[in-house]
Amino acid sequence: MIPSDTILTTNREVGERVRQYLDILTKPPGSLGRLEQLAIELAAMTAEPFPRVTPPGVMVFAADHGIAEEGVSAFPQAVTAQMVANFVAGGAAINVFARQIDARLEVIDVGVASEVSGLGVVDEKVRRGTANFAREDAMRREEAEAAIAAGRRAAGRALEAGCRCLIIGEMGIANTSASSAMVAILLGEPVFSLVGRGTGIDDARLAHKQAIIEAAIAARAPDPEDPLGVLASVGGLEIAAMAGVCLEASMRRIPLLVDGFIATVAALVACRLAPSVRDILLFGHRSREPGHEVVLAALDARPLLDLELRLGEGTGAALAFPLLEAACRVLAEMATFEGAGIVTGRAP
Amino acid sequence: MIPSDTILTTNREVGERVRQYLDILTKPPGSLGRLEQLAIELAAMTAEPFPRVTPPGVMVFAADHGIAEEGVSAFPQAVTAQMVANFVAGGAAINVFARQIDARLEVIDVGVASEVSGLGVVDEKVRRGTANFAREDAMRREEAEAAIAAGRRAAGRALEAGCRCLIIGEMGIANTSASSAMVAILLGEPVFSLVGRGTGIDDARLAHKQAIIEAAIAARAPDPEDPLGVLASVGGLEIAAMAGVCLEASMRRIPLLVDGFIATVAALVACRLAPSVRDILLFGHRSREPGHEVVLAALDARPLLDLELRLGEGTGAALAFPLLEAACRVLAEMATFEGAGIVTGRAP
Repeated sequence: MIPSDTILTTNREVGERVRQYLDILTKPPGSLGRLEQLAIELAAMTAEPFPRVTPPGVMVFAADHGIAEEGVSAFPQAVTAQMVANFVAGGAAINVFARQIDARLEVIDVGVASEVSGLGVVDEKVRRGTANFAREDAMRREEAEAAIAAGRRAAGRALEAGCRCLIIGEMGIANTSASSAMVAILLGEPVFSLVGRGTGIDDARLAHKQAIIEAAIAARAPDPEDPLGVLASVGGLEIAAMAGVCLEASMRRIPLLVDGFIATVAALVACRLAPSVRDILLFGHRSREPGHEVVLAALDARPLLDLELRLGEGTGAALAFPLLEAACRVLAEMATFEGAGIVTGRAP
Repeated sequence: MIPSDTILTTNREVGERVRQYLDILTKPPGSLGRLEQLAIELAAMTAEPFPRVTPPGVMVFAADHGIAEEGVSAFPQAVTAQMVANFVAGGAAINVFARQIDARLEVIDVGVASEVSGLGVVDEKVRRGTANFAREDAMRREEAEAAIAAGRRAAGRALEAGCRCLIIGEMGIANTSASSAMVAILLGEPVFSLVGRGTGIDDARLAHKQAIIEAAIAARAPDPEDPLGVLASVGGLEIAAMAGVCLEASMRRIPLLVDGFIATVAALVACRLAPSVRDILLFGHRSREPGHEVVLAALDARPLLDLELRLGEGTGAALAFPLLEAACRVLAEMATFEGAGIVTGRAP
């Protein structure tokens, strides 16, 4: 096995070569801005001077949350399973955007409370939703590990099907509550600065949601230095599964495009479990959910889009994907100044 | 002929219907953020409840600038013609991004100083580059009008070829100088706040560029209330042509996606000539050129992307185009809550 520091040196060298190559392409140096940085990062991630990200593989993990019974969401828990059926029928926003980018789309049940098998969903159900973390731990540590393993398997299937870039998304009524609780614990941030309206609750329910989460954190009190413990205590099965995708993508040096708040929390957990995960992460968009900003800052991440989305499902990442494709195409398809016979000498 | 206020009322009604329709699609209301606004705007522009923007038509207008002889650019004037050859050969950034979005791409010579015909370029040359506006008017008023007419014809060709959305871009060494001078005059802004590094000049040349433009504006002193006069006095042929595209797109109610600083100045001129042009404009990206921010504010425009681009050619608009396509697909392809059998009632 090649030592990991050798791999990293190789990757940095490829990134540096791409940085220099970008300056001989027919455009003023640096004029493609963040797209050039993206090309360098994709090259470094994959150790490919001409990286490819097509086709992308979108994975939507669905799971339920016991905390929903505290009335923290605008929608009833049954909507998780109904939306899973909608994913399978092709009518959700992520279906639309996945089709637009010619993505392989897989919907994985890692913990929906009701029965959704037989729908074309990949059955990796670890348990029927988490427990209500206001009253008890959301799940056992082994269950969090099982959900992580389910995410790794999903990543493996996408890669074996030929995907060159992974996109993680989720569906789970009340999962902004679980995510906010995790961020509060992992980053030591006050709950009121993290908790938002999720899919659209009013002021009264927002205050209630904050109070529920604050009390639950005080009651559960997991060790902030134990990411798996935090996941088991107040997290979610889809969050664990997305963390598993991050871990697998990192092992295989495949670029992973992270969606909004919930997916970014999963990425944070994965980075706490294995810091080198950060090297293969790209961030699709800046969500309207207030906690997202905090997690992005902790990961030193700067998303590509800022379109005030707050949907999840992987939609913001899928919308950002064409920018990754454009960055790869710049390297593969643009002419060099010399090849195009263009004088680069400075004007007199 | 239908009175224009009748058309506008119809369009607003279609926009309002789309706003309501978005709320019955399978997502929390408003959760697709600016993409929903984009869908409403595209519907209102075209009076189509299910608007379509594919295929897009990219038009790159090339012209030279006499002001280049004052040493305001990082590149010699010959690069304009060399880049036109590169566009025709398919090796420039706009070629790459136009291919990615399956666009019809047309390169139009409206005023390159040297001979570029026989290259596959549309020959609409009005004159061989503008005069040096530091010494005399850039062109005659009739020449500005001729370039506008060339732009209108280009828009017409794209529409006859079936394009549903127009993208304007440009190539012209020293055209940030012409654009900055136009903005200084049209908006009464101080030159130092507008002039940037264009394709990449150093501090000394930046100070020189500012001084040249300030002196030229004082010498030319066109009437700020006469957009055509400003165009003729300190503008450019490609800027006039892009304004022509805006005018034609507005007449035909076709969405027009504006690129960076130079293209936005052309859009400003078109709006001064016919205020209703603003209704069909969308803005692709926020450029690093400092004058762009000022013109965007004057047009009350909020670009879709912010990627620190400063290339022109239509690249920022082409990169933003998939977001327009996504907005149209949301309307055409997403399921409704009722159709998907999803309970939208609020949680208890």
